[in-house]
Amino acid sequence: MTDFNTLSVVELNDLKANLQEKYEEYKSKRLSLNMARGKPCPEQLDLSMGMLDTIKSDSSLISQEGIDCRNYGGIDGLVEAKELLAPLLEVSTDEIIIGGNSSLNMMHDTIFRAMFKGVPGGDQPWGHYPKIKFLCPSPGYDRHFSLCEFFGIEMIIVDMLKDGPNMDQVEQLVSEDETIKGIWCVPKYSNPEGVTYSDEVVDRLAKMETKAKDFRIFWDNAYAVHHLTDKPDQLKNILHACKEAGHPNRPFLFGSTSKISFPGSGVAVMGSSKENIQHTKKQLSAQTIGPDKINQLRHVLFFKDFEGLKDHMKKQADIIKPKFDKVLELFDSELEGKHIATWSKPNGGYFISLNTLDGTAKDIVALAAEAGVTLTGAGATFPYRKDPRDRNIRIAPTFPSLEELELAIQVLCVCIQLVSVEKLLKIKEVC
Amino acid sequence: MTDFNTLSVVELNDLKANLQEKYEEYKSKRLSLNMARGKPCPEQLDLSMGMLDTIKSDSSLISQEGIDCRNYGGIDGLVEAKELLAPLLEVSTDEIIIGGNSSLNMMHDTIFRAMFKGVPGGDQPWGHYPKIKFLCPSPGYDRHFSLCEFFGIEMIIVDMLKDGPNMDQVEQLVSEDETIKGIWCVPKYSNPEGVTYSDEVVDRLAKMETKAKDFRIFWDNAYAVHHLTDKPDQLKNILHACKEAGHPNRPFLFGSTSKISFPGSGVAVMGSSKENIQHTKKQLSAQTIGPDKINQLRHVLFFKDFEGLKDHMKKQADIIKPKFDKVLELFDSELEGKHIATWSKPNGGYFISLNTLDGTAKDIVALAAEAGVTLTGAGATFPYRKDPRDRNIRIAPTFPSLEELELAIQVLCVCIQLVSVEKLLKIKEVC
Repeated sequence: MTDFNTLSVVELNDLKANLQEKYEEYKSKRLSLNMARGKPCPEQLDLSMGMLDTIKSDSSLISQEGIDCRNYGGIDGLVEAKELLAPLLEVSTDEIIIGGNSSLNMMHDTIFRAMFKGVPGGDQPWGHYPKIKFLCPSPGYDRHFSLCEFFGIEMIIVDMLKDGPNMDQVEQLVSEDETIKGIWCVPKYSNPEGVTYSDEVVDRLAKMETKAKDFRIFWDNAYAVHHLTDKPDQLKNILHACKEAGHPNRPFLFGSTSKISFPGSGVAVMGSSKENIQHTKKQLSAQTIGPDKINQLRHVLFFKDFEGLKDHMKKQADIIKPKFDKVLELFDSELEGKHIATWSKPNGGYFISLNTLDGTAKDIVALAAEAGVTLTGAGATFPYRKDPRDRNIRIAPTFPSLEELELAIQVLCVCIQLVSVEKLLKIKEVC
Repeated sequence: MTDFNTLSVVELNDLKANLQEKYEEYKSKRLSLNMARGKPCPEQLDLSMGMLDTIKSDSSLISQEGIDCRNYGGIDGLVEAKELLAPLLEVSTDEIIIGGNSSLNMMHDTIFRAMFKGVPGGDQPWGHYPKIKFLCPSPGYDRHFSLCEFFGIEMIIVDMLKDGPNMDQVEQLVSEDETIKGIWCVPKYSNPEGVTYSDEVVDRLAKMETKAKDFRIFWDNAYAVHHLTDKPDQLKNILHACKEAGHPNRPFLFGSTSKISFPGSGVAVMGSSKENIQHTKKQLSAQTIGPDKINQLRHVLFFKDFEGLKDHMKKQADIIKPKFDKVLELFDSELEGKHIATWSKPNGGYFISLNTLDGTAKDIVALAAEAGVTLTGAGATFPYRKDPRDRNIRIAPTFPSLEELELAIQVLCVCIQLVSVEKLLKIKEVC
C-alpha cells in the first residue's frame, strides 16, 4: 500500500475528501460502540455460570479445616482457596493472602499500609517523606497511575521496550533516589502492549541495588493465564529471583480471577515473602472481618484445581482470539504500508496497543467518539493522562461482538487515516 | 440471697472452700466453651441457606437498570440493593453506598480517607494534624477502638449512661478541642450494654457546637433490626436530626447484613448526606472496581424487601432469645442479691454486659479460661483494653448451644463468686 508520507498535497487532499465521505457515512449510522475497557464479553462470563450451581441450600459450607464458611473469620482466606490460587502467582500457600473481589483494592490497601505504617526494611512510613515516587513503565495501566495520583505519589515515566521496562533507566533511577519506593509492573501480556518481561529484565529487577532500603515491585500479574496462543509466553518467577538475589521482601505480587470467572465477583490474591505476608496479615486484622469465604469455596468447587482453571482459560481464548485476529486483520488491510501507525500483536492479555503519528492520538479518539465509537481516552496509558508523544491508543477487543468490533475498527481506521492526512498536510504547509 | 458484703471472715472462708470445690469439679470436666465473640450460631445461619438457591446457572444476572451483575462496574451498588437496605439506615437511596461484606472495612476506609484526604468542611486532612482524637463512649465495641489504635487516633473515654453517652461530657469536650474529630456510637442495643440512645441524646449529638468544623459521628447501627422483643426500642433518625440542626454532613451511618444473612458473605452499607456520599464515591473510584453485585442480587432476591428482612429477623430472635433468657435466669438465680455483680437486660443486640466488683474482671476471666470457658478479654470493651475499674465483662450468648451456654454461665457464676469472696477477704484483711 502507498506510504502516505510520499503523497503530494493534491493526492493528500483527494484522499482527505474521500475519507471524509466515508467518515460521514459511518457517522450517519449513529453507532454506539464501546471499546474503552478491558471487559470480558457475556459469552466469556457464560463459561462460569456453572459456578453458581456449586453451592446450594443443601451444600456443606464447612471448609477443609473445619471452618464454617458462612460465619466470621479467616482473615487471609481458606486453605483450599490458597491451594487453588497460589500457582497463579507461583508462590507457596504461606506466601499468599486471599482477598475480596478486587486486586486493585488489594494494591490500594498495600500502598495505603506502606504510606501509613511502612514496610519491613524501611526507616519510616512512606507517608512521612515530603514526597515519594514510583517508576511507571509506560504505556501502562491507567488504574495504577490513578492510584499514585490518589496517594500523591509522583510518577516517573520509564520507557517500555520489547522485553519490559528500559532497565538501564530503571537501575540508574533507583540507585540514586531514596524516595523512589516502587515500580508498577504488568509483567505478562502487559497492559496495553502485550509485552512479557524477559528473564534478563526479571533478574535485573531482582538484583538491582536500590537507594531505598524499602523499595517494592508492584507485580500486577493480571494476565498470568490469559493466553491467546498454544505457545504461551513464559515469565520468570519474580519472587524466586528476588530471594536468590537476597531481596526477598522486594516484590508484592497481585492477581485475581476477575477475568477468569466473574469480574465483579471474582477472588483477588496477593503474594509475597513470608515476612511481608505476616506483616500484612497482622495489619489486616484491624481493617476487616475478612473476605467472602463462600465465594472462595465456589471457585474451589468449580475449578477444582489449577489445571481446571487453565483448561477454563482455553475456552475463554477460543471466544476472544477471533476478536484479536479481526482487529489485526483490519489493521493489516487498512493501515499496513501507509506508515501512519504501528500496533502490537500480543500472545495474550486483553489489549492491542496502537501507536499513530506523533500528535494525533487525541484527535483520532475524539473523531471516533463523534462517530459513536468510544475508545480508552488518549493519554490514559501514561501517568497524569499525558502521552508525551500523543500517539498511543489502547484497543480493548474483548467486549464487543465480532460484528460490532469489525465496524468499530473500520471507523477507527478511517479516523486514523483522516487525522494522519490532515497532520501530513499541515506539515507540508509548514515546509 | 445473702449480700456477700455482710458476711464475716469465717463465713467468707467457708464459702470460698465450697466454691473452690465446685470450681475444681468444673475444671476436671476439661470443658471447651467459647463466648468470646458476637457470632451467630449455625441454626441462625441455616435460616439464610435459601439465599444460596436464588441464583443458579440459568438465572438472569441483569439488574433493574440493565447492568450485567457478573461484569465490572457499579462502584456504589445496585439500585435494588439500595432500595432493600436504605430503610435499614433510614436514609434515601441517594444517601447510601453499598459496600463489600464488611462494615468494619467501610469504617476503616472512611477513616483512612478522612486521614488522607479530609472530609467536606475541613481545612485539611485529619492526618495533617500532629494528633487527632475520637470520643469513645465506654464500655464500647473493641474493634472501633482497634481502628483508632491502628490509625494512631487518641481515644477519650466518655461514660455510657442508661440512655447513651454522657452528653454533658461530650458537649464540653467537643466545644473546646478542635482536634476531636469524631465519636463512636453504637446507638441501638449498644455493644456491650444493649443501650438505645434516647431522642434527647440524638438531638444533642446533632445540635451540639463542635470546635472542629469537620467533626463526624461514626454511627455504627449494627443492630438496627436485631430485636429480642416484640416491643423493640425506637431510635431517632440521626441524619434527619443533623439536617434539622444545620449539620447535615455530621453523621456517617454504617450497617450490614452480617448478622442478618451470613457474617462472612453479607452486604455492608454506609449512609450519609448527599454531599458526603458524592465526596466518598469520587474517592472510591480510585480505590476499587466496586463490590460484588451478584451477592447484592442474592440478598435482594432472598429478602425481597425490607419487610421480608424484618420477618427474617423474627426467626433469628426465636433462636437466640432463649439463650439470652438462660443467661439472665442463671444470673438471677446465682448472683441476685449477693451485691457482687450487676448486668444488662437488653431488648436486642448481641451482648449482655456484666459489671462485677471493681478490680475483679481480669481475675474472673482468667479463672474461667482456666476452667475452659473463653470470654471476651477483660478490658476489651474499653480503649487501649484498659477498663479503669476492671469490672466489665462482655457476654456473647448467641454462638454456643443452650446446653453449652448453661454450663459456661454456671462456671462463670462460680468464678465471679470465688473471685469476689477473695476480694472481700482481702478488703477485710486490710481493715
